[in-house]
Amino acid sequence: MSKVLIIGAGGVGRVVTHKCAQAKNVFSAITLASRTRSKCDAIAAEIPDFPIKTAQVDADNVPELVTLIKQEQPQLVLNVALPYQDLTIMDACLETGVDYLDTANYEPLETAKFEYSWQWAYHDRFREKGLMALLGSGFDPGVTNVYTALAARKYLDEIHEIDIIDANAGSHGQPFATNFNPEINIREVTAPCRHWENGDWVETAPLSTRRSFDFPEGIGPMNIYRMYHEEMESLVKHIPTIKKAQFWMTFSDNYLKHLEVLQNVGMTRIDEVEFQGQKIVPLQFLKAVLPDPGSLGPLTKGRTCIGVIARGIKDGKRKQVYIYNICDHEACFKEVNSQAISYTTGVPAAVGAMMMLTGKWRGEGVFNMEQFDPEPFLETLAPMGLPTVVIDGGEWPEL
Amino acid sequence: MSKVLIIGAGGVGRVVTHKCAQAKNVFSAITLASRTRSKCDAIAAEIPDFPIKTAQVDADNVPELVTLIKQEQPQLVLNVALPYQDLTIMDACLETGVDYLDTANYEPLETAKFEYSWQWAYHDRFREKGLMALLGSGFDPGVTNVYTALAARKYLDEIHEIDIIDANAGSHGQPFATNFNPEINIREVTAPCRHWENGDWVETAPLSTRRSFDFPEGIGPMNIYRMYHEEMESLVKHIPTIKKAQFWMTFSDNYLKHLEVLQNVGMTRIDEVEFQGQKIVPLQFLKAVLPDPGSLGPLTKGRTCIGVIARGIKDGKRKQVYIYNICDHEACFKEVNSQAISYTTGVPAAVGAMMMLTGKWRGEGVFNMEQFDPEPFLETLAPMGLPTVVIDGGEWPEL
Repeated sequence: MSKVLIIGAGGVGRVVTHKCAQAKNVFSAITLASRTRSKCDAIAAEIPDFPIKTAQVDADNVPELVTLIKQEQPQLVLNVALPYQDLTIMDACLETGVDYLDTANYEPLETAKFEYSWQWAYHDRFREKGLMALLGSGFDPGVTNVYTALAARKYLDEIHEIDIIDANAGSHGQPFATNFNPEINIREVTAPCRHWENGDWVETAPLSTRRSFDFPEGIGPMNIYRMYHEEMESLVKHIPTIKKAQFWMTFSDNYLKHLEVLQNVGMTRIDEVEFQGQKIVPLQFLKAVLPDPGSLGPLTKGRTCIGVIARGIKDGKRKQVYIYNICDHEACFKEVNSQAISYTTGVPAAVGAMMMLTGKWRGEGVFNMEQFDPEPFLETLAPMGLPTVVIDGGEWPEL
Repeated sequence: MSKVLIIGAGGVGRVVTHKCAQAKNVFSAITLASRTRSKCDAIAAEIPDFPIKTAQVDADNVPELVTLIKQEQPQLVLNVALPYQDLTIMDACLETGVDYLDTANYEPLETAKFEYSWQWAYHDRFREKGLMALLGSGFDPGVTNVYTALAARKYLDEIHEIDIIDANAGSHGQPFATNFNPEINIREVTAPCRHWENGDWVETAPLSTRRSFDFPEGIGPMNIYRMYHEEMESLVKHIPTIKKAQFWMTFSDNYLKHLEVLQNVGMTRIDEVEFQGQKIVPLQFLKAVLPDPGSLGPLTKGRTCIGVIARGIKDGKRKQVYIYNICDHEACFKEVNSQAISYTTGVPAAVGAMMMLTGKWRGEGVFNMEQFDPEPFLETLAPMGLPTVVIDGGEWPEL
């Protein structure tokens, strides 16, 4: 029975806390900490049947984190704060001798990089202390890495190509709103696209490659746009037979129109402008007028469909396998007061923690999800709320 | 020979100053004042052959204005500042006994009204002091009022309907920018549409009525949208035979797309929102990130075409007359360092001043342009840069 410290009380923090509290066979105590303690208290109040301690912490401040960890003595720190804060939390784990898990790779504030280099550089230090860090235990990255590992180990003899496809077929009914922090969302979407091809990254303009993909289970055709996403970096490193890797995401014409205009007028700028004697970052002011993503939970209907099409060789023949999950926004909100975007990230974080705490996944150093056995993870993920569908040997168009 | 005080050093202020300085037979001295004196100095430096004095003044502050007027002793104050400042400047003129001219009606900050009521209420005070105030001496309002008066007096026995049509067939090549103060532009465009029909105002949704109009002189067909514009209020009051009055403006699909998105996300709101402990009006912040309209001058190509189609009865038969001006952006910039949007407003302001100072237009009280003889005004307007075209008796579609 394990004690954990969860850092971050946004939409994902809410889901992780709910799901850990549901898994009473693994978790015996939870401390939930964030910059704003009242947000932690609000989440704790939603879960009266589990003792949740709350705390205030500045996740940019290593000494503050160290003090909190020493006081709470968790076996594992689950980091669901901002990606800018991964390294300070890893430093505090090293100093206090505690395992670490996160859902998104470290991102420096001043430039949109989405690279694992900074965190992989911690491998030796975690190994020397006998500690484990599990990186990217959300859905994408996270479950998509596990799906790829499953295809490579179980359904194919050799995996050659992957297409990771992330569809939000839901709608919040607002003219424009981002499903999570608009600042992170817009950084990601407006970054140049990269995909992996024959041993190298190929860069193309942001959102310049579009396909139509016919999603399963009645979702039907939607436009998908190729973009860079961080799990490709670790997958092509750890599964070197992958010759081509692409990541695709659905965006509605309406979303793209709004994004284009906001870029055109300068409202997505992250530098400061002078206004009435004050320095203001336009993107931060935009965030102040846009709907709070948290307010969309009760409004969002429809489903997400996130998965991997893996293509390769089985018994000497070319074969494709499509592995995906479908998640319903309204069902998520009913269960944990968050829509499916937060739910599909928070549940795999809880399951990743369960793998580490039960010893099913174990190692010393810094690891990505595909480096472990996918089957125990997926066997736990389904009853925790995210069942896996495998279509073994179908035909999908080349993307 | 007359001395004038010009208040406002934006695009229109630049044009008025240039044009008054060209009319050396009327103007002997110019003082140019604005909140930012360096903007006045920059304009003065463009006109080395005319003595222009510059000054700093806060046009919201009546005592400051009074001090400046007493010191400069002008015969006329030309107000080309913001429409929010019309009443303070009129108050200062009353106190100092000086005539007044402006190009746009007073607008209270907190609501988009575009009504003459506040300024017409000054009529008795100006009359009692033997002073004259000329309202709306720009292009529209201004020249469009004069064109309507000309149609009513010279080309028709009775004027029944007018369509005022304002086309900017030019392009600045920017993804999005307004041709004048974006705050005023967007307030005007997003306000409900009103038109005059059978003795009453009919309100419709903003930009909900679209037509295609085939503009003359090779400009060709463009989409025009019906909107409210202030000259209709004075025209239907002073020319009561007008049964129907509509105002139309061209907008590109691109402009409308940007406007729609900015409205959707709340960036065109004119109420205050809380941001980092400050109260900020989103539309004013948007103005701070949009290109300064002044910067578009050297980039803008193409022409404007602004005019009036007047329909009525002549010699017992139905007849139409179309009176318009065509103005070239690049030619304007070459002459006075401003594109045609500022030029078409600033030149009529200078000509209105000339009418008042030479006694061709004279009255005691507050007046609109259509209350005076249109012919001397148009005879001066053409050599000052805005020639008039009259198509007497053509056929245009009902709009």
